[in-house]
Amino acid sequence: MIHRVVRILSAFTDDDPAMHMRELARAVNLPVSTVHRLVTELEVEGLLVRDDSGRLRHGHRMWEIASRGSSASSLREAALPSMEDLLNHTGNHVSLGVLDGTDVLYLERLAADDSTVNITRVAGRLPVHGCSAGLVFMAFAPDDERELFLQRRHTKLTEDTVTTSEELRVIMADARRLGYVSMAGIIVEESSGISVPIFIDGGRVAATLTLIVPRGDERLSITVPQLILAARAISRRLGHRPPPMGMQRRSAP
Amino acid sequence: MIHRVVRILSAFTDDDPAMHMRELARAVNLPVSTVHRLVTELEVEGLLVRDDSGRLRHGHRMWEIASRGSSASSLREAALPSMEDLLNHTGNHVSLGVLDGTDVLYLERLAADDSTVNITRVAGRLPVHGCSAGLVFMAFAPDDERELFLQRRHTKLTEDTVTTSEELRVIMADARRLGYVSMAGIIVEESSGISVPIFIDGGRVAATLTLIVPRGDERLSITVPQLILAARAISRRLGHRPPPMGMQRRSAP
Repeated sequence: MIHRVVRILSAFTDDDPAMHMRELARAVNLPVSTVHRLVTELEVEGLLVRDDSGRLRHGHRMWEIASRGSSASSLREAALPSMEDLLNHTGNHVSLGVLDGTDVLYLERLAADDSTVNITRVAGRLPVHGCSAGLVFMAFAPDDERELFLQRRHTKLTEDTVTTSEELRVIMADARRLGYVSMAGIIVEESSGISVPIFIDGGRVAATLTLIVPRGDERLSITVPQLILAARAISRRLGHRPPPMGMQRRSAP
Repeated sequence: MIHRVVRILSAFTDDDPAMHMRELARAVNLPVSTVHRLVTELEVEGLLVRDDSGRLRHGHRMWEIASRGSSASSLREAALPSMEDLLNHTGNHVSLGVLDGTDVLYLERLAADDSTVNITRVAGRLPVHGCSAGLVFMAFAPDDERELFLQRRHTKLTEDTVTTSEELRVIMADARRLGYVSMAGIIVEESSGISVPIFIDGGRVAATLTLIVPRGDERLSITVPQLILAARAISRRLGHRPPPMGMQRRSAP
């Protein structure tokens, strides 16, 4: 039953924020009578509301419950000032990601109007092997988790997506040694992603901070220190002491 | 059943983001066995997760479902750039509110470190009659909704909370004529709130934009035009054409 409720609630998206009952039933592939019964209960709770045209949408209550209890909201809030500074200083897209299963889920994404293609969107997902953020999470993950990742079969998203465990292993080792991952064109041909970890609890990676730049315009000697400093500021704002600046180098395999 | 699930999910807040099963059962006043059964299902869906210490918290999936389907997220995103400009230009707290039942729910709140007391918080609520934002919503509400509001019994939150329908009626009429509400000390003695409507669909108020200033420091000839221009920019970013600048005056009763 909870599964059906989740299916109903997650049928509403940025592209389909409002639906009539029949559209909703079609979207979740359940009988109209079942959907009707569940929707009525969800309306009582304020999780769904009807707009003037009779279409259903999420009620503000839904957003409220999720925001209040969520580490996503506090992460986002702690990261926002540094993300704005990065956007203003670099003129590049900036995103904040967390690991959720085998995906990176993007909690925030600030867009520079005139920069390159950026397919991340707020509350959007990318597969771990298809973005620099995901490779940072895997680089700093516990050994058993990283091994599981390396043993999975990865699909090519572009010509340049890295899919072999040998190559991925080198990228992870470099990431731990250098403290960042820079990948060109692994999901969109014309863009590069540069990502660094945001540490909490003296070593766990809570999130990743990413700059999306036009491919070939990585200027790592400038962008990486900016990203690392911003990530450290976010760690502090979350109430954690980031590890000493040299630590990433020392923890190299 | 949905009611119980909502009770469980909304037990997690900024102050209590993580709980053991027994604490949770106590918080929602349900038997541990019932909570256990529902939590197990919620874990399968990723709405709840267990942290290293075995405590339950919201999973990122919860935030994701709410963010994707929610007009709150798109409103927040559209408003954020103008809110930052207002914060930087005025040095005052800025908040974004929506109407939810008899409360204003705050979707965003940017804080100026050295300004006055501001009790709003993100995903926090204030009663409609206790904040300038609420009075803007009521001023521009359909007549029947406003009458219902005026007929309710309102409690004094401070000495200065306006509670009589006669006085409230004057405030609403002024708000429609002037396009803003400025209230001093109606919920916190030392602060004033100045709020303007964010119009969509050529007349409906989707949200309110508010500056919180030290009481006596309202400088309305400066702050109100800044707020109105910011609100119009937000309307446009939401894809709406705000009403002509003089409209609020013409729609006076």
